[in-house]
Amino acid sequence: MNLERADATATADAVRNGKISAVEVTQAALNRITARQQELNCFTEVTVTAALAAAKRIDNEIAAGKDPGMLAGVPFAVKNLYDIAGLTTLAGAKINAENPPAIQDATAIAKLKQAGAILVGALNMDEYAYGFVTENFHYGATHNPHDLKRIAGGSSGGSAAAVAGGLVPLTLGSDTNGSIRVPAALCGIFGFKPTYGRLSRAGVALFSSSLDHVGPFTRSVRDIATVFDLLQGEDERDPICTKRPPIETRNSINIKPNIDGIRIAIADDYFTKKAVPEALEAVHHVAKALNVSEHVTIPEAERARAAAYIITASEGSNLHLDDLRKRPQDFDPATRDRFLAGALIPGIWYIQAQRFRTWYRDRVREIFSKNNHHGIDVILAPTTPITAPKIGQQTMVLDGEEILVRPHLGLFTQPLSFIGLPVLSIPIQRPNALPLGVQLIAAPYHEELILRVAAVLEKAGVISAAVV
Amino acid sequence: MNLERADATATADAVRNGKISAVEVTQAALNRITARQQELNCFTEVTVTAALAAAKRIDNEIAAGKDPGMLAGVPFAVKNLYDIAGLTTLAGAKINAENPPAIQDATAIAKLKQAGAILVGALNMDEYAYGFVTENFHYGATHNPHDLKRIAGGSSGGSAAAVAGGLVPLTLGSDTNGSIRVPAALCGIFGFKPTYGRLSRAGVALFSSSLDHVGPFTRSVRDIATVFDLLQGEDERDPICTKRPPIETRNSINIKPNIDGIRIAIADDYFTKKAVPEALEAVHHVAKALNVSEHVTIPEAERARAAAYIITASEGSNLHLDDLRKRPQDFDPATRDRFLAGALIPGIWYIQAQRFRTWYRDRVREIFSKNNHHGIDVILAPTTPITAPKIGQQTMVLDGEEILVRPHLGLFTQPLSFIGLPVLSIPIQRPNALPLGVQLIAAPYHEELILRVAAVLEKAGVISAAVV
Repeated sequence: MNLERADATATADAVRNGKISAVEVTQAALNRITARQQELNCFTEVTVTAALAAAKRIDNEIAAGKDPGMLAGVPFAVKNLYDIAGLTTLAGAKINAENPPAIQDATAIAKLKQAGAILVGALNMDEYAYGFVTENFHYGATHNPHDLKRIAGGSSGGSAAAVAGGLVPLTLGSDTNGSIRVPAALCGIFGFKPTYGRLSRAGVALFSSSLDHVGPFTRSVRDIATVFDLLQGEDERDPICTKRPPIETRNSINIKPNIDGIRIAIADDYFTKKAVPEALEAVHHVAKALNVSEHVTIPEAERARAAAYIITASEGSNLHLDDLRKRPQDFDPATRDRFLAGALIPGIWYIQAQRFRTWYRDRVREIFSKNNHHGIDVILAPTTPITAPKIGQQTMVLDGEEILVRPHLGLFTQPLSFIGLPVLSIPIQRPNALPLGVQLIAAPYHEELILRVAAVLEKAGVISAAVV
Repeated sequence: MNLERADATATADAVRNGKISAVEVTQAALNRITARQQELNCFTEVTVTAALAAAKRIDNEIAAGKDPGMLAGVPFAVKNLYDIAGLTTLAGAKINAENPPAIQDATAIAKLKQAGAILVGALNMDEYAYGFVTENFHYGATHNPHDLKRIAGGSSGGSAAAVAGGLVPLTLGSDTNGSIRVPAALCGIFGFKPTYGRLSRAGVALFSSSLDHVGPFTRSVRDIATVFDLLQGEDERDPICTKRPPIETRNSINIKPNIDGIRIAIADDYFTKKAVPEALEAVHHVAKALNVSEHVTIPEAERARAAAYIITASEGSNLHLDDLRKRPQDFDPATRDRFLAGALIPGIWYIQAQRFRTWYRDRVREIFSKNNHHGIDVILAPTTPITAPKIGQQTMVLDGEEILVRPHLGLFTQPLSFIGLPVLSIPIQRPNALPLGVQLIAAPYHEELILRVAAVLEKAGVISAAVV
């Protein structure tokens, strides 16, 4: 089998069926990482000995006739803001490099390990997750596997590039304003941000607590569903983590490989402006395949983005205030300036943004509500306004206006994470062109609808992850 | 019967038993209001015709053999931040006088009317509830019935003075940082602030949403319990209002007129400093009557007060920002300056205050928790650091330090409302001296413990409301 292109499920199946050993799979992953790290700069740490030891344990379990788990022998890696027991959690910051090692794995890591997955290392990101580019001042830029002169997107850039570059089939990232979806789109793979509070954030460094989500990057819809299933569930280490019962998305997909009864619409207005034509064509391509022509307006999305900015900058600055005061020179300059600006935002703006958030959440809920004429189940929107910009590129032109790249790649992702909606960015591959993403958006706790739509699109060959 | 001194329960009993008509009770209340309004300045509006018509309806119901309700014929009035259908809601502000009349009664008013109580008017307060003195620039100061040269306390000063002055046996106020408890203490009556979110705030003008509570002023513990029972319950007009089932405190008291099994302690440290000796003696007087000698420390109460200030000023300023920009000259000068200062507080301070709040809430919960060595049920603390200051008095001396009266009367109340604890201020009458208050504090949703302790103290003659 081609381990470089296989998804996690296929890899685990091969290991579980004894076609290949977990050690062989892990060695192959480590070899690919070694071969490509220099050009991609995905990893900030590779946990070679621990990975091989864990793989050996899986092989021993299989030899002993035990069930090695759904993800047996699947190599995975995590954005370096996840705690890995024994390693210092960087969160992309030089300042954090002075911290003692983490004592305990993040809950999400523990759950994947429990399912037999093999942790192989930590991945590059924007400092403190504040950015959409992964051009880290301290740890370098991560390069896009589709074009090494281009960014992988951010802030979970290492997580996206590692999957798209064929290094590992599964990674974890975090998404505050688009930090999973943006790099997934620019690297041509799947990136999933479930409902706010659905997955435990225990052991994951916070950026902006009322907006932070965790989620996976994969090469297939079934992998997204499997990992989502594994990561769900209450966690006493995370008071935010919801007490809702988990949903079995694998079963949902298996039982219903169709979209009967799912009402889908295309986001118009805000989500059709400030985008290059190809980004909108990607949405229409998906809509056509689904036979969707209905449109829906998410009201005040621009204001939602502004409010998300205020909350992000305020909450983020609050977390780093001490360091901003005492050692501003140790920050990434691009991050420092934004945090300093965030520290000056008046409280009344923050409060107003939170008040608006409640209003906006209720308006968007109405769109999904079956009690009115809308009753939409899944909304389609572009993930990014443009394909991957070049490394070092400062500005881009959208709608005739030259605007900064770094903050504006999240134009279409911010208004959705702002109210915690579940969103999957699905990969659109285009001949002789860079990939793009389309967002599948649902009401809170309706992840299964998104995954059913994605499964149908994948089966029809409309979407697919690229490994390059 | 002496209607001027009777509590609401006795008044209602007389009406229900036909000893006096609701119209007679209401006329008597209106006459007392007319007689004393000039010297006390409690009322900003007296609803004579509506009150008499409502009283007539109660009498008709009784004549028809119907149950007129638990509070049949009891005259009551509300702080003028409660919506009264047909009247403009002032919230102590001149600016609000331009608003159209309210369309609907506040939920709390509707519930009391439903129980047969007769609304007789609206009561004076500090502008936008921001103050502890009720020296309103636009509507004048409310005078303390115990000494007309002194303040009634605030911000619900009219509500406290109307009950202490013998005008009505029942009023409603609001408490953000102490605005029910402070005037209750300075006027020598009962003032109750139940758990945050327990009583509906629908139709009550907000001051600082994450801190605002509503509650009653009365002349007896049984009245507090009855009104609390009547006001409880979910309200679709108030999303904050809790879904917990109501507790029947009347029954609790009737069934258990004792304090067996209730562990009581005196708050030490912060709650014993910056108080005149008499304020601390009042607490010891109560403790002695209850045979209590145990002490307990509420940690970081001073920091809690600071955080409450930041949140109050930030949330309050947010609500009035438009007017502060366009017409600052129309504010009460004392309020305007504090709102302007509040508008300049950085968001990171507000966020830090909210983060501290979670930490502090968890520490205080441990004090009440049965899982550790504490397991305290009710805590005793002074309500105010001193007796009622003079009208116009700018400063007071506490612990040798001269500090401002207006903000500091809430020294002992702010750290408790900050985390939404239920608190009853009980009145201590002293021969030839002004009254003082003692706070009975319990864990969230344990109002019944407070009321049982208060009932025992009242029965023993240790506490009693003064009508002067």
